[in-house]
Amino acid sequence: MSEKVVAVAGATGLVGRQMMCVLEERNFPVKALKPLASERSKGKSVTFKGEEIPIEVLGEDSFKGVDIALFSAGGGTSKQFAPFAAKDGCVVVDNSSAWRMDPKVPLVVPEVNAKDIEWHEGIIANPNCSTIQMVVVLKPIHDAAKITRVVVSTYQAVSGAGKAAVDELLAQTKAVMAGEEPVGEIFPHPIAFNCIPQIPQSKAFIDNGYSTEEMKMVNETKKIMGDDGIRVTATTVRVPVHTGHSESVNIETASKLTAAQARELLAKAPGVVVQDDLDAEVYPLVIHAAGKDETFVGRIREDISHPSALDLWIVADNLLKGAALNTVQIAELL
Amino acid sequence: MSEKVVAVAGATGLVGRQMMCVLEERNFPVKALKPLASERSKGKSVTFKGEEIPIEVLGEDSFKGVDIALFSAGGGTSKQFAPFAAKDGCVVVDNSSAWRMDPKVPLVVPEVNAKDIEWHEGIIANPNCSTIQMVVVLKPIHDAAKITRVVVSTYQAVSGAGKAAVDELLAQTKAVMAGEEPVGEIFPHPIAFNCIPQIPQSKAFIDNGYSTEEMKMVNETKKIMGDDGIRVTATTVRVPVHTGHSESVNIETASKLTAAQARELLAKAPGVVVQDDLDAEVYPLVIHAAGKDETFVGRIREDISHPSALDLWIVADNLLKGAALNTVQIAELL
Repeated sequence: MSEKVVAVAGATGLVGRQMMCVLEERNFPVKALKPLASERSKGKSVTFKGEEIPIEVLGEDSFKGVDIALFSAGGGTSKQFAPFAAKDGCVVVDNSSAWRMDPKVPLVVPEVNAKDIEWHEGIIANPNCSTIQMVVVLKPIHDAAKITRVVVSTYQAVSGAGKAAVDELLAQTKAVMAGEEPVGEIFPHPIAFNCIPQIPQSKAFIDNGYSTEEMKMVNETKKIMGDDGIRVTATTVRVPVHTGHSESVNIETASKLTAAQARELLAKAPGVVVQDDLDAEVYPLVIHAAGKDETFVGRIREDISHPSALDLWIVADNLLKGAALNTVQIAELL
Repeated sequence: MSEKVVAVAGATGLVGRQMMCVLEERNFPVKALKPLASERSKGKSVTFKGEEIPIEVLGEDSFKGVDIALFSAGGGTSKQFAPFAAKDGCVVVDNSSAWRMDPKVPLVVPEVNAKDIEWHEGIIANPNCSTIQMVVVLKPIHDAAKITRVVVSTYQAVSGAGKAAVDELLAQTKAVMAGEEPVGEIFPHPIAFNCIPQIPQSKAFIDNGYSTEEMKMVNETKKIMGDDGIRVTATTVRVPVHTGHSESVNIETASKLTAAQARELLAKAPGVVVQDDLDAEVYPLVIHAAGKDETFVGRIREDISHPSALDLWIVADNLLKGAALNTVQIAELL
């Protein structure tokens, strides 16, 4: 790949920072890095490959001469600025939900649907974190046995809600440990030593009783897998974990797969690591998955309540595979 | 009810203590309380209704003159001593898993199958904590629409593993907050800021890949509901919460129930409180359910992946409704 001018919009956020780390770690051919952020970050800088680079304020003209722009600055910002980038010939890989369900925008997880990248018109969307780690595991199972229905419950880390959310978990934990009342601004209820069945933090729910996070898992799964026949129901829950989402996933298939067959398929699947040795108490855990690129799967078993279904436990780093890494992997395909 | 001599076996444990609190709070007609524990607790005493009562060492002869014995001292102890109690004419209400699936032992949740108490032969079993809170919600739905299959994922508090487990969560949380390595003896992996898909803590798994906790939910549900046709699959997970289990439950029914119909049924169900106001961000939370007698249910919605299924979020205090309270409620039926 020839060297590219790469912009990162939302360079001061948790995911934006991770994007720059991943670009550096994976030795992405960056000719020049252009960190972009809002007015608030004016005067700040970022360090990339040992070099201090001043942050520029994101504007309509930020993308002249830029080859690739990685966006992680929220849906509103993406909606507003991505079209200007695309108009200037820059390819946008967007981590927000703004463009994901747009029929003109490919929604890509490289291990699952890399070929969808071909029909982009300047914007490619990165899926929701909880969807990404699920579909890399669903893909080989779907190819082998045709998935008909998925019932998923999530255990999601606070870092998905940004740096302030991580700080809030820590501050509330400290308060509770000291016998004080936990206070907070990010989550609708205290998250320390609690489980909150609401994601995102505000305006979460739609008319059918699902949260928008849950509907992302329903709809994005179909689009990425390229099969509207995969029915999904999801319950997404915030838990007091810093980084790393866990998912309890029940998968019904048209033809029966044994647990052994599923384990074998998953062991060969790109980006997937099987951790499934019950005698040794080995299964995926967020404390081990945080900081890792792969998606981890274990507790693989045949569902005794259904003639052809599997139960799985899937864990990944929500900031890496769930966000920054997948975005950079898409950029690598370009 | 006439006054009874009540023994509590396992009087120094988390659940044993709760049992005595519940007996006191509910004004159970106790003629005399007999706290029993192992050799280790010799010389200790408990306080009941303001009175200091010395703990006696549990033995084969402990139950002479005792009317009701509440056991919460582990499966091995129940297996060993409950028959001696029964032989002496004492009725045992046992909170361990020792007798639950014995066909001669009723397994009772008063709101669901109080009448099963009639055929006891000296021992009545209290179900597993995660099963109890689920079946009080399943019951009215089953009566109205016949449940065919349940897919449940749990978010279980550490107090289910005893006082030492609570201490371990606190110590590990402190360690992590101080940047130190969390150490522990109770859980197979650190529980602070983590989710562990293994319950119980050791020798958890059986040949089919399920844990024994998961199989309890599968088998006890059928026995309590009196219907072997209810197929259940479960994934049980320990989360860093002190007290209160949460459950994400997907329920398939033979005939379709709307969310509104389910809400109406549950609002009238004994022991159940509906907390389901999404606009106000009201749904069950462990931090509110801890210390309460009721089982709380919310996030009630029609599953968009299935023609007749519901998704629910169920929360209860695992030490109260999940253990001590249900045991005392059974004793009240006697």
